[in-house]
Amino acid sequence: MIESLNKAFCVLPGVGSKTAQRFVYHLLERNRKGGMNLAKALVDAMEYVKHCTSCRTLSEKTLCHICANEVRNASQLCVVETPADIHAIEQSGVYKGKYFVLSGYLSPIDGIGATELGLDELAQKLTNQNIEEIILATNATVEGEVTAHYISNMAKQFNVQITRIAHGIPIGGELEYIDVNTIAHALSGRKEYD
Amino acid sequence: MIESLNKAFCVLPGVGSKTAQRFVYHLLERNRKGGMNLAKALVDAMEYVKHCTSCRTLSEKTLCHICANEVRNASQLCVVETPADIHAIEQSGVYKGKYFVLSGYLSPIDGIGATELGLDELAQKLTNQNIEEIILATNATVEGEVTAHYISNMAKQFNVQITRIAHGIPIGGELEYIDVNTIAHALSGRKEYD
Repeated sequence: MIESLNKAFCVLPGVGSKTAQRFVYHLLERNRKGGMNLAKALVDAMEYVKHCTSCRTLSEKTLCHICANEVRNASQLCVVETPADIHAIEQSGVYKGKYFVLSGYLSPIDGIGATELGLDELAQKLTNQNIEEIILATNATVEGEVTAHYISNMAKQFNVQITRIAHGIPIGGELEYIDVNTIAHALSGRKEYD
Repeated sequence: MIESLNKAFCVLPGVGSKTAQRFVYHLLERNRKGGMNLAKALVDAMEYVKHCTSCRTLSEKTLCHICANEVRNASQLCVVETPADIHAIEQSGVYKGKYFVLSGYLSPIDGIGATELGLDELAQKLTNQNIEEIILATNATVEGEVTAHYISNMAKQFNVQITRIAHGIPIGGELEYIDVNTIAHALSGRKEYD
């Protein structure tokens, strides 16, 4: 039983058998109630959390709280790779538009193509809804860039402004410790100083 | 639901809300079956794992597999702080005796005294069983040392050899990177070279 709980914990990202063992002993010796709560929360979430029918993020309801919020600007659509990215952007507090979640990036080798990323749905949105700007906020990785490029190509046929979030030196970053690719990108992407 | 699962994960040691969020999204997006398995394993373990009546380690049975193993040397008793310590010692493969788990260390300020550590049971063992050696394998921390000292004092009234595991430079350790306390300990505890 201890062994199987240990193995079950290993499905979590970044958790190996040593960390899993620490979790198991901690719960068994100090917090069995917390362990039971965790089990209950897991069952609830695994059973009842679905995807928002509009933006594809994880949600308990048919429409997530952002899609259901009529105050938000429906003419801006921010395309992200995962629901966690929405969370990160929301915490910055500057974006007031809506989202679209790809749930990953293009990866033909793994069988993840346009359909899997919901690009048909995205095209439909661009056709039917009055969207003025599509912000490509996929990750600054090779895969994220390829995906952004693909979506940008697709979106060109619609009458929509296509933008990509800025890449460069992170705020608070010291040049000395920034990797060369970022510096190269920040230099070539320099802007008029005002 | 996503929020409560996130909070439930935070009871695990070393898991904050950022890591918890990673766990939640991973399970929901990629491995719902793994999440369900984890929930089941948690319920089973929290409900059915008890303590071995002989050595006090975590065990599904009344007697753990080490206490129930008659091949093991019952005249040696290794005193450790936690069940995880037994696991660590067992992996070294050199110890063939039995164990006694304190489940912590002496900490009067937290209300953890001799009774909570099961020292009455330990005294009873020393009275009733034919134990020749008691090996103090509490941690090399201040608390572990105090606990070892206390147990050693208590065990003196019984006709038993009292030993403490050796402390010094870890195998593979380079002096340059070892902390001064360990070096001081290793020097004062030096042995005749053979």
